[in-house]
Amino acid sequence: MPDLSVLQYDLVANLMSFCIAVMGAGAVFLFFARANVAPRYRPALLVSALVPAIACYHYARIAGSWAAAYVFQDGSYVASGVPFNDAYRYADWLITVPLLIIELIAVCALSKALAKSLTLRLSIAAALMIVLGYPGEIATSSGPAWLWWGLAMIPFLYILKVLFGEFGTALERQPERARPLIAKARTLILITWSFYPIAYLAPYMGLSGAAGEVGLQVGYTIADITAKVGLGLYIYFIARAKSEADNWDVSLTSDVDASHSRELVGAAE
Amino acid sequence: MPDLSVLQYDLVANLMSFCIAVMGAGAVFLFFARANVAPRYRPALLVSALVPAIACYHYARIAGSWAAAYVFQDGSYVASGVPFNDAYRYADWLITVPLLIIELIAVCALSKALAKSLTLRLSIAAALMIVLGYPGEIATSSGPAWLWWGLAMIPFLYILKVLFGEFGTALERQPERARPLIAKARTLILITWSFYPIAYLAPYMGLSGAAGEVGLQVGYTIADITAKVGLGLYIYFIARAKSEADNWDVSLTSDVDASHSRELVGAAE
Repeated sequence: MPDLSVLQYDLVANLMSFCIAVMGAGAVFLFFARANVAPRYRPALLVSALVPAIACYHYARIAGSWAAAYVFQDGSYVASGVPFNDAYRYADWLITVPLLIIELIAVCALSKALAKSLTLRLSIAAALMIVLGYPGEIATSSGPAWLWWGLAMIPFLYILKVLFGEFGTALERQPERARPLIAKARTLILITWSFYPIAYLAPYMGLSGAAGEVGLQVGYTIADITAKVGLGLYIYFIARAKSEADNWDVSLTSDVDASHSRELVGAAE
Repeated sequence: MPDLSVLQYDLVANLMSFCIAVMGAGAVFLFFARANVAPRYRPALLVSALVPAIACYHYARIAGSWAAAYVFQDGSYVASGVPFNDAYRYADWLITVPLLIIELIAVCALSKALAKSLTLRLSIAAALMIVLGYPGEIATSSGPAWLWWGLAMIPFLYILKVLFGEFGTALERQPERARPLIAKARTLILITWSFYPIAYLAPYMGLSGAAGEVGLQVGYTIADITAKVGLGLYIYFIARAKSEADNWDVSLTSDVDASHSRELVGAAE
């Protein structure tokens, strides 16, 4: 690990802590927002809540590993000798990236056969993308790094091809008010996910040392927040739009617990 | 404990952390997915959620014990002198293995007499299998290890005999769309559970030292994730298929608590 100034070390440590807070809050919001959408969209919101919950756990681990990897010495931060464990990011992505795909497909409530086929193919491709990326991440020379990068790009391009091809066609049958939201959610995936393969190559494109390490950690953290909580919020807005299109009224079951007491009151009247 | 390279130590530590995240997420998903199935299948899903919740707790203990058993020294990980506590695995299995059997029988909603008889016999056999395996796990020579392995295999083979015999016959009365899912869940048990007696013998079949220890920990962890969260998801899909076959509609009972109050209202009217 390269030596860091106090400003550099703190930027990463504070952003990781910020990320823990945003992921935790996002998970709780999405979890309880299930009550505001029709029952058929609730499993999609449940998965959307699990993703930042899992990331919150992993960022607690990542922040702990960052703190253990450095010691404060003579006005700056130097490597403590304990290796920084970046593999927590890959463990997180291996679970959450397939789940992000699953939440987007689930909220669309496509036909059973199409939903099953898309979920299976895209979640396997997503997992494969992460698994193939890891050997390149821990590679110490540019040859294997580029090789594994190239291999991981194959499932990534396949995911984009399906999302903008087959899945795009299926969108035409979605309610009018949900369609632009789904298209935006897909664009969010395209933009945020494209950040990772670029960041991955940064050390081999001249960005190394302290600036490279800080840039990488900052970039991954911002991309994770946007890809997970950002997409989760889109899933929520899509579910709301579709619930309205289904003529489902939030006051029918406005809240999981409130509905219980309201109906009891109704029964007593 | 054998000395380990950073890569070997990290592989086990990262996989254990990954397992904590998957078990935790699996437990939360299965717990709240109860709302998406007919009330009669909810107890099976509740048990399916408890299994990864219990495993999540035990993996936090196992990961803590793994971290305490090693110290980082001169570029590699050496035994700290604190023994690694593998007994947490057996404590976990003693609770979760009978519960896995119970969730599979419960979701089938068999006749009361058959369900009771199968649950009793198979959960006792499952507990016996774990209890008999433990003395062999802590044995230091191959004689007792093989002896206890052989004894533990008796209840295991009995479980397989019942699952593929008596229980198989009962399956014929299950709804058509649920049958292939139940058969797959049973195959998952056969494959994942068979891994444990093989892994158990690995040290006596030439796999020892660092590679043996790492292989054992990795194998047990992957088998646990598949056997617990994998089976739990099958139980969920079986419950969904059976709810549909019962003509139960998710929008009828949007939520576990809401359905309760609606029924109270119905009773009051």
